[in-house]
Amino acid sequence: MTTGVRRRMGVEERRQQLIGVALELFSRRSPDEVSIDEIASAAGISRPLVYHYFPGKLSLYEAALKRASDDLAARFVEPHEGPLGARLLRVMRRFFDFVDEHGPGFSALMRGGPAVGSSTTNALIDSVRQAAYVQILSHLGVTDPPARLELVVRSWISLAESTALIWLDGRRIPRAELEVQLVHDFAALTAVSAAQDAEMGALMRRIAQEEPADGPFARLAGRLPALAT
Amino acid sequence: MTTGVRRRMGVEERRQQLIGVALELFSRRSPDEVSIDEIASAAGISRPLVYHYFPGKLSLYEAALKRASDDLAARFVEPHEGPLGARLLRVMRRFFDFVDEHGPGFSALMRGGPAVGSSTTNALIDSVRQAAYVQILSHLGVTDPPARLELVVRSWISLAESTALIWLDGRRIPRAELEVQLVHDFAALTAVSAAQDAEMGALMRRIAQEEPADGPFARLAGRLPALAT
Repeated sequence: MTTGVRRRMGVEERRQQLIGVALELFSRRSPDEVSIDEIASAAGISRPLVYHYFPGKLSLYEAALKRASDDLAARFVEPHEGPLGARLLRVMRRFFDFVDEHGPGFSALMRGGPAVGSSTTNALIDSVRQAAYVQILSHLGVTDPPARLELVVRSWISLAESTALIWLDGRRIPRAELEVQLVHDFAALTAVSAAQDAEMGALMRRIAQEEPADGPFARLAGRLPALAT
Repeated sequence: MTTGVRRRMGVEERRQQLIGVALELFSRRSPDEVSIDEIASAAGISRPLVYHYFPGKLSLYEAALKRASDDLAARFVEPHEGPLGARLLRVMRRFFDFVDEHGPGFSALMRGGPAVGSSTTNALIDSVRQAAYVQILSHLGVTDPPARLELVVRSWISLAESTALIWLDGRRIPRAELEVQLVHDFAALTAVSAAQDAEMGALMRRIAQEEPADGPFARLAGRLPALAT
C-alpha cells in the first residue's frame, strides 16, 4: 500500500492490532488501570471504533488473555532431547521471559484481575496449567500418571506461579537464581514423595540415572549433604 | 426460655445463625449451588427475612467467609514448644481438618467462587495467607526475613493450598500422608534455597540441629539417600 493514503484495516487485522496494543499496555500497567480511551489512542482510532471491534473492555481483555495464554503455552514446548533437568531449566527461562514481559498483566490476572471469576478467564488459566502438566508428563515418559505423580506435578506448577508472582513484587532475587531453584524444587518435591511411595521412588531413580553429573539435578544432590554439617 | 413459645432471636444472634447455616450448606455443596431459599428453609425463616439480615447472597457469603477465615487462622496458632517439624505437622493436621470440613466451599473459593474478584473476598484470602506467614516466621524466630526466606515461606503456603485442592478432587491419597508430605516439602524447599544461599544455609542448619532423630524432618533426611541407589 504505497498510495500515500492510510489504508483501512480489515476487521480481523484491526482486532489483532487492538489485542497487540492492549497487551503492550497491560505489560506496563495493571489492566484495571488501562482505559479503553488509552487503548483507542495508542491504536490511533476513536473510542467508538474500539467498541465496534470489541463490545466491551472485558471482551478485549479476554482476547488479549487468549493470545498471551497461547504464547505462554507455546513456550512450554521443548524438544525431547538431552537430560530432563536441562530441558526443564530452558522452559523455566522462557517462563520467566514471559513473566518479565507481561509483569503487571500477569500479576493482576493471577491475583484476581478485572475478569477473574469470568468463566472464559478461568478456562484460559486452566488450559495453560493443563498444557504445562501435559508437557511435563510427556517428558517424563508417563502416559497414565499415578495420583501421587499428578499431585507433585500440578502442585509444582502452582509453586512456579507463586514463585514468579513473588519475584515480580520487587524483583529482589535474581530471576536466573529462581529459574534454577524451580528446577531443583521439582526434584525435591519428587524426592519427598518418593521417600513415602515405592512407585514414585522408581520414577525418581529412573530420572536420576539419566542425569549427567553437571546437570542441575545432580548439582543440587551434590550440595545437599553440606547443609547437614 | 421455657415458655413453650419459640423466642425471637436478636439481630446479631439471627445473623450468626444464618452464617452458621450457610457455612454448613457450603461445606456440602458449592456456594454457587446453594440458594437463599435453601438457606432460609434450613434456618426456618422466610426468604424475605434473610434479606432483612443480609442485603444479598454476596453479603451473606462474605460474612460466612469471614467466620471461616477467622476459624482457619486460629488453627495456625501453635505453642512455641518442642521441635519445629512436629509443630508444623500438628498445624498441617488442623489445616486438613478445616479443608475436610469445608471441602466444597474451600474448593469453590480457591478455584474462583461466586465472590472472587470482590475486594472483600480477596482481602480475606490474603489475611489468612498473611496469618500463616506471620506464624511460621515467629516459630522460626525470624523478625526481619531476607527475601529468599520470604519467598520460601510464601510459596510453600501456596503449595499447601494447591496440595489441599488437589486432594479434595477425588481424595485419592490419604490425607495423613499429605500432612507429613507438606512438612517434608517445607524442609525440602528450604534446603533447595539453602543450597544456593549462605544465609538460608545458616537458617537451615539451625533448624536441623534442633530436630530430634525421630522427628519428621530427620525421617525425611534419613530416607533420601536410599533414593539415589
